[in-house]
Amino acid sequence: MARKNLDLLLTVEWKDDAVVMVDQTKLPNRLVYVKCTDYLQVADAIKKLVVRGAPAIGVTAALGLALAAQQSKAKGLDELRTDLDTAFQVLRATRPTAINLFWALERVMGKAKRARTVEDVKKAVLGEATKMWQQDIQANRQMGSNGAQLFKDGDVVLTHCNAGSLATVAYGTALGVIRAARESGKRLSVIATETRPVMQGARLTAFELQHDGVDVSLIPDTAVGHMMARGAIKRVIVGADRVLRTGHVFNKIGTYQVAILAKRHNIPFYVAAPLSTFDLKSSPEDVIIEERSVDEVVRVGKKRVAPKGVRIFNPAFDMTPPELVSGIITEKGVLKPPFEKSLKKLLG
Amino acid sequence: MARKNLDLLLTVEWKDDAVVMVDQTKLPNRLVYVKCTDYLQVADAIKKLVVRGAPAIGVTAALGLALAAQQSKAKGLDELRTDLDTAFQVLRATRPTAINLFWALERVMGKAKRARTVEDVKKAVLGEATKMWQQDIQANRQMGSNGAQLFKDGDVVLTHCNAGSLATVAYGTALGVIRAARESGKRLSVIATETRPVMQGARLTAFELQHDGVDVSLIPDTAVGHMMARGAIKRVIVGADRVLRTGHVFNKIGTYQVAILAKRHNIPFYVAAPLSTFDLKSSPEDVIIEERSVDEVVRVGKKRVAPKGVRIFNPAFDMTPPELVSGIITEKGVLKPPFEKSLKKLLG
Repeated sequence: MARKNLDLLLTVEWKDDAVVMVDQTKLPNRLVYVKCTDYLQVADAIKKLVVRGAPAIGVTAALGLALAAQQSKAKGLDELRTDLDTAFQVLRATRPTAINLFWALERVMGKAKRARTVEDVKKAVLGEATKMWQQDIQANRQMGSNGAQLFKDGDVVLTHCNAGSLATVAYGTALGVIRAARESGKRLSVIATETRPVMQGARLTAFELQHDGVDVSLIPDTAVGHMMARGAIKRVIVGADRVLRTGHVFNKIGTYQVAILAKRHNIPFYVAAPLSTFDLKSSPEDVIIEERSVDEVVRVGKKRVAPKGVRIFNPAFDMTPPELVSGIITEKGVLKPPFEKSLKKLLG
Repeated sequence: MARKNLDLLLTVEWKDDAVVMVDQTKLPNRLVYVKCTDYLQVADAIKKLVVRGAPAIGVTAALGLALAAQQSKAKGLDELRTDLDTAFQVLRATRPTAINLFWALERVMGKAKRARTVEDVKKAVLGEATKMWQQDIQANRQMGSNGAQLFKDGDVVLTHCNAGSLATVAYGTALGVIRAARESGKRLSVIATETRPVMQGARLTAFELQHDGVDVSLIPDTAVGHMMARGAIKRVIVGADRVLRTGHVFNKIGTYQVAILAKRHNIPFYVAAPLSTFDLKSSPEDVIIEERSVDEVVRVGKKRVAPKGVRIFNPAFDMTPPELVSGIITEKGVLKPPFEKSLKKLLG
């Protein structure tokens, strides 16, 4: 299933009683879609990074629950709830760091609990999941319009990893803000970091911005400091996998050091995250930083780039403390430091 | 030509009237040696990173001149000098940043100028080149013994790129210091950064330290800040391609940001560089930072990791200002800030 020349990439959708998603492991070489007809396929796709990016993971998991509900052969309500509970446990165990996953699954399960017949539960689960799908696009658009004002005509903006269409349903968080600024008439260009080891910047961000006609350049992760020292970067914007009440930002490994480098060069560092990415309960030490397979580091395609048997550390995320963050862009407005205070105000 | 189980890797040597070197582009998968019988092959090998690392480049270029002298069919002194001049120009144009290249070539040409017969010139050129080969090993050993005292038993040391055996004739600058500290009885372990885009850390540093039985782990370049924040790194040591009188250090792209991150986490940041790497004449703005091919970034082996046509910035080096450097280890002693003053004292 290869579809081309879409206006905007649609990362995931519910279609013909299945969850259809871009296979992001095949990018940038091929734009291929996979169709999941079993929630276990959805769980596997999340684990293997076929779909990734906190908001996209959340919506996909919700659609996975909808699939589990459709699949279920349960005759009675209790049996269906048991099936749904199993699917909930399987889906929530796929990745540990992005909070959207837990948020989305709990929201859908909450709806399921309030329905009173087998048919109503199935309807409620699918209804809530597709509603979240729509709300994700809306929230991205609103974040875009809130964040666009922070950028100036002519800005060169560095972004790390992929917080774009491909990390959400369609528009993007960090890249959504860039899209919105451009739609408002500002000429922005983007510098994407490769983002080792999984290369989301090279494979996904460069791909989707090129796809949309946005001016984009790619640099190795090692060149961030040098480019900043040369004055080539005016602003930084990234997404997030989890934002704490205190403003601590968990995001793709490398974000923390980009933030330190931005601070040293007096470059504003922004985070774009919908409220579904906020975790108001946890402290920094509660958050599990996923350690991923050594294979992500030692091989690129079929080529081995490190000697056999070498020990590897491959943390997938890191934590950026609030003092390095200039602002957090949400669908309800832009949070400025101190974040705990401004968040309280924003949430009323 | 595959030789295995060497005690210490010998990066380059003069053997059977040829320049024999490890083909570093084949590491870590195969340890293969190439034999150059023409100085043009030597120049090509330097350009293509078959041999790399500032000290190794210097010695290899010197041996290349020796090869040009041997090759020359010149009957008279003037003709031989013309042949040597051509080889000098070709070899000096291979790479622009590492100062050792220019230093080595000029030193050999200086010797050639003082000789008075065809035979004497040939002898002088080869003699000086092989002397530099020996002196490189000696200087590394001396740097090792000078630098070893800066490390403590149990230290975990981060290094970037490869400043090891494979960047020199045999022992290494930064990794030579680590070897010397270990030989003095201190238990050190090493964390190597991958060092995108050419992956010298993954391919070469991890390989040579494993080869020598040194405890080594590998991390993506994006994980440096995170590992420092976790307290997993006690010291940093890197090599250099050029050190200015002021203490500005030109080294592999990414060094600058590692230095900033070390500063932020209060981790000492050392540079190991023989005096042949010092450029006492240039100012920071005089130094050319080599921009290398986009192919280094967009492909790994046969796998394309970035979309076609995307703009790439691929600077091979960056500049670390002296305020980020805790000490510079040379074969004559350890320079401490302010470097201009301590260098004057060291050089007498």
